[in-house]
Amino acid sequence: MPISEFSLIDRYLAAQGLQRADVALGIGDDCALLLPPADQQLVVTLDTLVADVHFFADADPESIGHKALAVNLSDLAAMGATPAWATLALTLPKADEEWLARFCRGLFALADRYDVQLVGGDTTHGPTTVITLQAHGFVPPGQALRRDGARPGDEIYVTGTPGDAGLALAAAYGKTTVGAAYHAYARARLERPEPRIAQGVALRGIASAAIDISDGLAQDLCHILERSGGGALLEVEGLPLSSALTASLDRDAAIITALTSGDDYELCFTVPPERTAQLEALAADWDCCCTRIGIVAAEPGLRLIRADGSAFHLERLGYDHFG
Amino acid sequence: MPISEFSLIDRYLAAQGLQRADVALGIGDDCALLLPPADQQLVVTLDTLVADVHFFADADPESIGHKALAVNLSDLAAMGATPAWATLALTLPKADEEWLARFCRGLFALADRYDVQLVGGDTTHGPTTVITLQAHGFVPPGQALRRDGARPGDEIYVTGTPGDAGLALAAAYGKTTVGAAYHAYARARLERPEPRIAQGVALRGIASAAIDISDGLAQDLCHILERSGGGALLEVEGLPLSSALTASLDRDAAIITALTSGDDYELCFTVPPERTAQLEALAADWDCCCTRIGIVAAEPGLRLIRADGSAFHLERLGYDHFG
Repeated sequence: MPISEFSLIDRYLAAQGLQRADVALGIGDDCALLLPPADQQLVVTLDTLVADVHFFADADPESIGHKALAVNLSDLAAMGATPAWATLALTLPKADEEWLARFCRGLFALADRYDVQLVGGDTTHGPTTVITLQAHGFVPPGQALRRDGARPGDEIYVTGTPGDAGLALAAAYGKTTVGAAYHAYARARLERPEPRIAQGVALRGIASAAIDISDGLAQDLCHILERSGGGALLEVEGLPLSSALTASLDRDAAIITALTSGDDYELCFTVPPERTAQLEALAADWDCCCTRIGIVAAEPGLRLIRADGSAFHLERLGYDHFG
Repeated sequence: MPISEFSLIDRYLAAQGLQRADVALGIGDDCALLLPPADQQLVVTLDTLVADVHFFADADPESIGHKALAVNLSDLAAMGATPAWATLALTLPKADEEWLARFCRGLFALADRYDVQLVGGDTTHGPTTVITLQAHGFVPPGQALRRDGARPGDEIYVTGTPGDAGLALAAAYGKTTVGAAYHAYARARLERPEPRIAQGVALRGIASAAIDISDGLAQDLCHILERSGGGALLEVEGLPLSSALTASLDRDAAIITALTSGDDYELCFTVPPERTAQLEALAADWDCCCTRIGIVAAEPGLRLIRADGSAFHLERLGYDHFG
């Protein structure tokens, strides 16, 4: 028996236990009523995941729920924001209670960890699963990490090990073989990205610019450079590569994957030289690695070099939905 | 030549002329940075439109752009909120510049009229067009029109003439014939709904509960009753019906359409008896009609009666996406 749209919303989306004090009215009316803190800026971002474009339609629904929120928390992290609320638009081909229950379990598990309350939802029928989630957070005025603050001489850093999600995708499409020992790791990096919220907040007052890597490290770094002006020199053999990546691909293919594959949700950021010591002291306590990978230059363009100074050539910069 | 996702966003979504002073950072970074007024509550709502579910895929893109925003502004109106910002997630089967340009023209024309700035967007590729828009507005604390404030004895009102969008849909599906004189009118009511923002703001301090009619007058009124407790008595022959509706359908079919068809985006609201005179004085200046259609009762359930007091029977209450 099909259950109605309203039962769906009531039974699953409104079932999160968390109740924040700054939510005057959550799911169940025409709108949510929220109380942003008076001394902070409101930070909002939304991202859409489409079945068989951004995730495999038959993937574990818990992972899909996790990822729908994680990719948006990652955008908040890239601004140095503290998460607060989420809204969810869910288009589904059928009212599958088992799928919804598991999707919500994954979504709410991550939401609860970051004190994020789901305050609004819309469930609609459509031929394919499309998930749009908007995340809302706060940042003190003037402290947001924007894309336009990088200056020549700033050091470029990246968190974690980019390329792992791309490795999992390449394996899924049969383009490469990943040993059993590394397969679960790469798959988790693709399906359960961990938003770098603590790192983003810690970077307030330290980073001059930041972005999260959703379309590939090289392309996303270029977004910083376009906004800030200038270019960058990247030492590709100094990129932090996971054992999974280096064990599965030859050296150059691993570098190309780390530079161009999407879905990493790590932070790429720039730090003025006078603050790098402070950054590195902070990063020593992080639960992910943090690696200096290059330097911002005055000349436009992204220059990639090997350890011996020779140029490293990239065929294409990164992922493009319509390319 | 396909244009890239980033060009799409830059060229069309970021091209709105309007620039509000409370937007510190709009489209073009990981997130938008916004400055909600310290003395107001933030009001948010999101709605999804799916091609060939919520609109005809070959409909005029300007109308689709208009409607994507209008249905959300209608939710703000139902809370008595003043609109401020919008975010847009657009899933498209192909990067069609002509379609996008016209979609944005319709969207921005309505946005500009209500001083709404588009502050964030995500454009993705998918097999079918799916549009999710989130609207953000403000309301003074304690003045939002919620669904849970109706009390026995409150009078029930509706703006405009419900059923017109349903008539246009019935004509489009060949279920009824609408004369040429009325066809354009009904089609405009379906495709270019006018959000009742001014009415919603005027109802602050007057209405005890409000909702916008997206799923059918009877069903949406029931949402108020479920939240508030109690029931209602509706005099169906007193419903405000347009000439288009009464000229196209027999009397009972017209009433059923007005009660059960979706997509009207009128406001249904309740007013305590001591404030109805104040309401009717205000409504005299509105650009839409405002009609008393019934009364809130202590006994649960929606009772429909004709002018002679006999019961009026409804087969089903309203629109259900998964029903």
